[in-house]
Amino acid sequence: MSQLTAQISMSLDGYVAGPNESMENPIGAGGMRLHEWAFATASWNAQHGRSGGEDNADSKVVDEVTANIGAYIMGRNMFGPPPGTSDPDWKGWWDDEPPFHVPVFVLTHHQREPLEMQGGTTFTFVTDGIESALERARSAAGDRDVAIAGGASAIQQYLAAGLLDELHLHVVPVLLGGGKRLLDNAGDPKLEPVDVVASPAVTHVKYRVVRN
Amino acid sequence: MSQLTAQISMSLDGYVAGPNESMENPIGAGGMRLHEWAFATASWNAQHGRSGGEDNADSKVVDEVTANIGAYIMGRNMFGPPPGTSDPDWKGWWDDEPPFHVPVFVLTHHQREPLEMQGGTTFTFVTDGIESALERARSAAGDRDVAIAGGASAIQQYLAAGLLDELHLHVVPVLLGGGKRLLDNAGDPKLEPVDVVASPAVTHVKYRVVRN
Repeated sequence: MSQLTAQISMSLDGYVAGPNESMENPIGAGGMRLHEWAFATASWNAQHGRSGGEDNADSKVVDEVTANIGAYIMGRNMFGPPPGTSDPDWKGWWDDEPPFHVPVFVLTHHQREPLEMQGGTTFTFVTDGIESALERARSAAGDRDVAIAGGASAIQQYLAAGLLDELHLHVVPVLLGGGKRLLDNAGDPKLEPVDVVASPAVTHVKYRVVRN
Repeated sequence: MSQLTAQISMSLDGYVAGPNESMENPIGAGGMRLHEWAFATASWNAQHGRSGGEDNADSKVVDEVTANIGAYIMGRNMFGPPPGTSDPDWKGWWDDEPPFHVPVFVLTHHQREPLEMQGGTTFTFVTDGIESALERARSAAGDRDVAIAGGASAIQQYLAAGLLDELHLHVVPVLLGGGKRLLDNAGDPKLEPVDVVASPAVTHVKYRVVRN
């Protein structure tokens, strides 16, 4: 069956965004340091229509975690607009062609018509909970996997509900000292590390959630 | 030169002890889950005078992290007595022959005569700060390394002060959901993962602290 997966870069002290998130800096102070390893890979650059980058172990991981995804689920903060602001025409943090290229189901409390973007991304707004979003995403994905695009809260909710099959962490050797923690309020899942890839920039650990 | 190292088991959510530490349960609720991987190794059992345990990748790591240590530094909570209690004859959490077998320098605010135990362990109480403790430990260790035995606060202080050379984390795939965090208040050291050993029970990552 299609798997529910999540992959995310986390600082060694457990943060997926730095402190003081704002409109100008949506992933907080120092948050970009979590993603430099990816920006340096050939895979990430190719996926964003650019040349360059290194074809190394990290690049292979980027290929792996983005393969075979038929739909995404996304938390409302990751879609936006930023907390405390409102913009009924907000179309996400991306440009007219977001980098998803498949259906994206956005968890939200605000009903809204689906938003069809260029390049195959459609944002569908789901107001009746995480299980409903998963059901709709699975249906859209067919045989392919469903990935949680982020952020922390969406991953936590699926992990705590026992619905996540795989958590692929990219542990970046920096200490952000504050910000948004990934693994708070995530329950006590039985996790098994099933694959580890090490590079000088980051340690990738894939955890399988073991069901009883 | 002799290195200052620390090795410690940490939950995937960043805790080295669970919540609700007490005299009966000095490493908090669920804290023992962080150490089960070590108890299962042949090395740990042999070091504690027992037979049994598995001679696997984890066992080799236990051998590695306990080799070549000429002295330890220990925080006051790790030595004890537990916060809120007082016992002028307290001799640590261990029996008459503690498992260190070399000089141990205890960071404390209370002056006390050195305490010579069986098997080569001597506890010396240092009241004039972490740099003094390090100097004395280096002197005692000679060519061998100095290891911080724990706990979290001692490791944080040496890391924040730029004095730690190597941090060897054993990342255990459990979420404790609360307790004592290892990497708070540790500054922003430049860390480089230099060795990763993976097993089904734990992911060992050795970080070198890079100096500018």
